[in-house]
Amino acid sequence: MAVSHAPFPAIPAVAGFRLATTACGLKQNGAPDLLLVEMSDPCSVAGVFTRNQVVAAPVTLCRERLPTGTAQALLVNAGNANAANGAQGMQRALTLSRCVADNLQVPESHVFVASTGVIGVPLPLEGPLQAIPQLSARLRPGDWEAAAQAIMTTDTFAKGAVRRFEQAGHPALLAGICKGSGMIHPDMATMLGFLFTDAAVQPPVLQTLLQRAMATSFNSITVDGDTSTNDTVLLFASGRCGAPLLDDPDAAEAEPLATALNSLCQSLAHEIVRDGEGATKFIHVCVSGARTQAEARQVAFAVAKSPLVKTACAGSDPNWGRILAAVGYAGVPIEAERLSLTLGDVPVVAQGGRLPQYHKTQGEAVMQQEEIIIQIGLGLGEASHTVWSCDLTHDYITINAEYHT
Amino acid sequence: MAVSHAPFPAIPAVAGFRLATTACGLKQNGAPDLLLVEMSDPCSVAGVFTRNQVVAAPVTLCRERLPTGTAQALLVNAGNANAANGAQGMQRALTLSRCVADNLQVPESHVFVASTGVIGVPLPLEGPLQAIPQLSARLRPGDWEAAAQAIMTTDTFAKGAVRRFEQAGHPALLAGICKGSGMIHPDMATMLGFLFTDAAVQPPVLQTLLQRAMATSFNSITVDGDTSTNDTVLLFASGRCGAPLLDDPDAAEAEPLATALNSLCQSLAHEIVRDGEGATKFIHVCVSGARTQAEARQVAFAVAKSPLVKTACAGSDPNWGRILAAVGYAGVPIEAERLSLTLGDVPVVAQGGRLPQYHKTQGEAVMQQEEIIIQIGLGLGEASHTVWSCDLTHDYITINAEYHT
Repeated sequence: MAVSHAPFPAIPAVAGFRLATTACGLKQNGAPDLLLVEMSDPCSVAGVFTRNQVVAAPVTLCRERLPTGTAQALLVNAGNANAANGAQGMQRALTLSRCVADNLQVPESHVFVASTGVIGVPLPLEGPLQAIPQLSARLRPGDWEAAAQAIMTTDTFAKGAVRRFEQAGHPALLAGICKGSGMIHPDMATMLGFLFTDAAVQPPVLQTLLQRAMATSFNSITVDGDTSTNDTVLLFASGRCGAPLLDDPDAAEAEPLATALNSLCQSLAHEIVRDGEGATKFIHVCVSGARTQAEARQVAFAVAKSPLVKTACAGSDPNWGRILAAVGYAGVPIEAERLSLTLGDVPVVAQGGRLPQYHKTQGEAVMQQEEIIIQIGLGLGEASHTVWSCDLTHDYITINAEYHT
Repeated sequence: MAVSHAPFPAIPAVAGFRLATTACGLKQNGAPDLLLVEMSDPCSVAGVFTRNQVVAAPVTLCRERLPTGTAQALLVNAGNANAANGAQGMQRALTLSRCVADNLQVPESHVFVASTGVIGVPLPLEGPLQAIPQLSARLRPGDWEAAAQAIMTTDTFAKGAVRRFEQAGHPALLAGICKGSGMIHPDMATMLGFLFTDAAVQPPVLQTLLQRAMATSFNSITVDGDTSTNDTVLLFASGRCGAPLLDDPDAAEAEPLATALNSLCQSLAHEIVRDGEGATKFIHVCVSGARTQAEARQVAFAVAKSPLVKTACAGSDPNWGRILAAVGYAGVPIEAERLSLTLGDVPVVAQGGRLPQYHKTQGEAVMQQEEIIIQIGLGLGEASHTVWSCDLTHDYITINAEYHT
């Protein structure tokens, strides 16, 4: 089950990147579970990672390698997170990275790795080590849908997006794939995202632009409030579009890329929520009238995470009392008598109390939609923030009570 | 559905308190929904309330009246929370309180009120106003089970407990009833607790003892992480046991009452978790080796609230990776390589990695029990804290997607 979503888009090849996928036995159902991406030349790389303090070995490895700002290969496996495996976990991540470096004849420090799947089970090496030479021989430009499929775990559909823009007059492309449907929460639980552009950007500038795009996309979604050990978003820039190397994130020439990046990340983040485990509804929680954006965000997350609000959405129940209760415990100082609430386009609460003209049938009509917009006004200031969430259904329980280690 | 629980205990009358219950039409199924308790003389009262900033009118009223430290009546209704009703909500709470004062001929400021049920629906007055004179005429000592039934909402069983102790050589009693099964979280979401003792205690001392008992009982449980607008625990002390008035919470004579209070509150809090909406398992999350108790508590709550841990318990899956992930995002600085984890009596993780001798079948045997003990060692200090939680099941979704406004 999932909220309605668009089919996988037609994403062209992006100059400078070739890829290959295979099934190497990590997924028990025999589905593709290994993705190799090769950069034809050393390219710029930026990355953001989980803030969980229990981190998977591949995250540690990527963090160590990111400061060089240069990447030549990416290996991603699904089916095993290689997390909580102690020193052995890092040894196995290094073994895979070395195998990629040997096969592609690139420096080991330019190889990035990512894993997703069950935690605490040693990562089998035989399958991936056998597959890497074959993948290296089969690299081709542009099959993004196969790449998106190979990194899926409990996802029910492959997720990708593309944006076209111009850098200093040169046509450029930005393609992205991602996975994630449970353990989703800001700081990107069990969320993997890989973005590829032929723009020409210095690594520190790329890092700044990626971090800015996170705030209004991957870091503003929640499925179940759990954050994972493996979250990773990597952005690679090959520079093949022909533009001069961007050296200032605030330069006018950076704007089209920044815009494309924000838009693409938001689109990918929404896909993840639409595929939230068991989700049948897509929920926008828009908080305005806050003193600061941080406070708006905190209130929006309290509402977006509330199991009682999420089950009310599942049941199409305009139970606005639960929404106000979540606002009240968000930890942000509020004035209850200034609160306002609109469900869809139906005003429900003003000055902390139910509007006399509100009828429950109006609220029900909104809550029965597949897309629900909850607008909360705090009446305290000018700041606002939007968080995206999904409903909490029987299928979430089924998936997570049965997704065994 | 609920975790196994003991039958309602035999609780004797407590000197100084008489009660009566009835059905006044607030519950749509016609079940009892109104409880009146009369204190034969002005007695000491202590109270703790929700920290939610959106609070119900009866909570505001109790807070205003608590400073006098004196109570002569308590009126509790179930079926309507009288929350988020604006100024009208307070007017109606005052109307009910005045009606009780008139009928029992006590000062209005000595009447305490509490409500539980749906939020945002105006509290109907006709039923309660008609019922109060009848209840006043039917007051009797000691039917605690009927009292516990009258305050239930989605609870599946009535909750009560009793402790006997001595105050300065005088035999004394402490009886308690409570309700709550959803929106349960520290600071006591949609949780009502009413405690009655014939001990003799000055109000400020009673308040101190009640607050101390909260930390290891009602404020250490979670069902769904939502906190409510109505949570209230009130403790009344009639002084009829004959002991001299206690004027120091740290005096030796206070100890038996303090012990009884801690034990009774913990017992009632456990009953609430056992009746967690949809719960089939009772979970102890014991965190030790923390630098401070506050940090131990924070980690324990992160694990106890995690939907992924709670669904793993529902599915009897020893998915210890999810437990470590929750420890990692709790927001407390940890050292992953010092973590240890024991499920039941089975050591699973030491120094951050899975123990070689651990077999999944051992973990499964633990997780299949109705009572699951999760012990987490942080290896950083000497402080510890335990939080109690329940699993997250299909029935939670059913109850909350269908409990309509």
